[in-house]
Amino acid sequence: MTALDFTHDPGRRSWVASAGPDTDFPLQNLPFGVVAGADVEPRGAVRIGDMVLHLSGLAESGLLTGEAQAAAEAGSDGALNVLFALGSGPRLALRRALHALLAEGAPQQQAVSALLIPLRDVDVLLPARIGDYTDFYVGIHHARSVGALFRPDNPLLPNYKWVPIGYHGRASSVRVSGIPIGRPNGQLKAADASAPVLAPTRRLDFELELGAWIGPENRLGTPVRIDDAESHIAGFCLLNDWSARDVQAWEYQPLGPFLAKSFGTTVSPWVITPEALAPFRIPFDRPEGDPAPLPYLDSPPHRASGGLDIELQVRISTARMRDDCEPPHPITRSSSRHMYWTFAQMVTHHTSNGCNLQPGDLLGSGTLSGPDTGSEGSLLELSHGGTDPIRLPNGETRTFLEDGDEITLSARAHRPGAATIGFGECVAVVQSAITYP
Amino acid sequence: MTALDFTHDPGRRSWVASAGPDTDFPLQNLPFGVVAGADVEPRGAVRIGDMVLHLSGLAESGLLTGEAQAAAEAGSDGALNVLFALGSGPRLALRRALHALLAEGAPQQQAVSALLIPLRDVDVLLPARIGDYTDFYVGIHHARSVGALFRPDNPLLPNYKWVPIGYHGRASSVRVSGIPIGRPNGQLKAADASAPVLAPTRRLDFELELGAWIGPENRLGTPVRIDDAESHIAGFCLLNDWSARDVQAWEYQPLGPFLAKSFGTTVSPWVITPEALAPFRIPFDRPEGDPAPLPYLDSPPHRASGGLDIELQVRISTARMRDDCEPPHPITRSSSRHMYWTFAQMVTHHTSNGCNLQPGDLLGSGTLSGPDTGSEGSLLELSHGGTDPIRLPNGETRTFLEDGDEITLSARAHRPGAATIGFGECVAVVQSAITYP
Repeated sequence: MTALDFTHDPGRRSWVASAGPDTDFPLQNLPFGVVAGADVEPRGAVRIGDMVLHLSGLAESGLLTGEAQAAAEAGSDGALNVLFALGSGPRLALRRALHALLAEGAPQQQAVSALLIPLRDVDVLLPARIGDYTDFYVGIHHARSVGALFRPDNPLLPNYKWVPIGYHGRASSVRVSGIPIGRPNGQLKAADASAPVLAPTRRLDFELELGAWIGPENRLGTPVRIDDAESHIAGFCLLNDWSARDVQAWEYQPLGPFLAKSFGTTVSPWVITPEALAPFRIPFDRPEGDPAPLPYLDSPPHRASGGLDIELQVRISTARMRDDCEPPHPITRSSSRHMYWTFAQMVTHHTSNGCNLQPGDLLGSGTLSGPDTGSEGSLLELSHGGTDPIRLPNGETRTFLEDGDEITLSARAHRPGAATIGFGECVAVVQSAITYP
Repeated sequence: MTALDFTHDPGRRSWVASAGPDTDFPLQNLPFGVVAGADVEPRGAVRIGDMVLHLSGLAESGLLTGEAQAAAEAGSDGALNVLFALGSGPRLALRRALHALLAEGAPQQQAVSALLIPLRDVDVLLPARIGDYTDFYVGIHHARSVGALFRPDNPLLPNYKWVPIGYHGRASSVRVSGIPIGRPNGQLKAADASAPVLAPTRRLDFELELGAWIGPENRLGTPVRIDDAESHIAGFCLLNDWSARDVQAWEYQPLGPFLAKSFGTTVSPWVITPEALAPFRIPFDRPEGDPAPLPYLDSPPHRASGGLDIELQVRISTARMRDDCEPPHPITRSSSRHMYWTFAQMVTHHTSNGCNLQPGDLLGSGTLSGPDTGSEGSLLELSHGGTDPIRLPNGETRTFLEDGDEITLSARAHRPGAATIGFGECVAVVQSAITYP
């Protein structure tokens, strides 16, 4: 776990006007991403307020030295994989240098100011080339309530409290926030039908997840110990694991979700570093009466501070709401506290068989529902399996998503004595199904 | 489907001595791969007999023109992704040019001869950078007999004859033939135990599969029609989907296989082209009484020649057999005829939701067991779930794999009036489990 230092001091502010303490991207955040301009190839950048700073520009400026300079050079590529591979030392050195350059009173303000680009002038891209994408299932309230819909007699399977359940996802169709999601076609079979049909899904859903970007690799055959696991994480994002529930119900036995998920996954573009989230680490406990994790997934340091406290929100905006200039409507408020397994445990479990994780690989948490009404991380749960529509302020109702619906995930970490850290948005609008060729 | 032409004429022979008609790699095969030498970076090559030819050397030789030259240039990279992306036109042009250059009587024999390198002087590598790896489940005899072990009351699930069942596999741990496979650790839970333990798998298995390499991409949101599907396949290989059956049994519900498979997958290095296999296309029929595929997975041309007729074999060599200089022992003979869905149907189904496939993506067929004793594509089936050991000629028995066992998959296509086409070998030896850190 990262120790708190001057970069976490909530009293320090940036000279960048848009980076105030109530924004997602104050001086204490400094996430990395990849941006492109009209005439500028994609390259790594850091965000502060509503401005971005090319790491290549910084590397050429002469303002950095040592490990910070090496990290800025690594981040000058069109994807952050090389920066991710460097690990926490150079990343922390770059964070400290950026913090000093962007803090009020920095003598280099004029030189750095010349390098800032307004966010509105760039396209924000996927931050890394994703090798493999793995989606876990660590939201126990989601697992229990979805399990009850698919298997009423057996909602939470016997392995759940022992195994951080996960599956391999589709890397090629992961897209950055802002790119519309097409309603997929798939095989649908009504319970009373003798045969399925190929048709646009009628049960399109979102899933509220956190994602983690892998940093330094482990080699094939080399498991990662629980206390080393966090050193393999380069940062975090929001992740919407779009799901076609009717396709999923018909296809998922016996090998798990496939085309019900692989038509698209949306991630937020800014890589929130473990350092930025250090003030929001919390103890990681099991509920009373639950079994302790097996020894390879457990350690005193992990129990002391393996948890994360991040507030999560989902908002919906329908086409009619936008026509009427109504703001997006919050339908879910949840928290990373509902993770039954941590990302460190996911890394350790994933590599326990020797499987190699590589820089730029993406892990999804699975849907992070809370236990209460209004904290469900999917429409499947919010509408009780499609039986009980949710009602929006303008009178519209939803069981599943309709064409034109826009879903926005957001996340913020805050507590007294720390600057607020936001994730920005993970947003996409649903487009109508393509006509099958 | 590729039309037969002079490159399939079984009467033509190569001037390369080791490329006789009884070998895996005669003049009619000409598979592509990637090789590296002591002082030579990895680069694309073609194999003939026991010799290889760098495509870069050929591209620089002045012996090619037009599309064949463009294909050789594309194949000069350290991975075949760029060549794969070009598709069938340039690949066929290169095949025809290579065939002419390597055929008896070729006036360029002396010039080409100078470019040949003995296979024993190079390392043969993974042929492509794999983006995503998807494993299907199209061996119906395997699905039925494994289903009977996991679900005695319900061996073949209701979706099997409608959906080409598949799941996302782990791309990072795919390795080329020859690299040992480490016995993985994993969570094992005895039926009568109250808790699982982390331990080396006791039920390590092989799976006999064919693989297909994806050629030209389809863009996200663009399904591939069944009659276009084969144009997206660059070639074929053998694939051993190593499996830890005890890990699989405990972890696979509800999201499918994960760590039971992701510790390693072995593929044969030579990409056998669709053109080389053209003489072995056969009609693709459903058994009497089975439902016809949904229209998107069916067409008259696909029914006429969608099938493939390739003989498959598995051999085992134990440490004791090698010590005693005994040859590997065949334990399974099967055929690609046992595929219930074709690779064209896999491509079409995979993309039916708009999912994009990219050059270098890998598809596995799933285990291709036959219906009879001796044609089972895994030890799980050969040993009836571990209850009935197989007996080797030297008296050793096996339910599952032991350390030091070497498994070799091989494949050959032959019929009267056509030259034999072989796949070479897909081989790996089992190494003992690593000590958990």
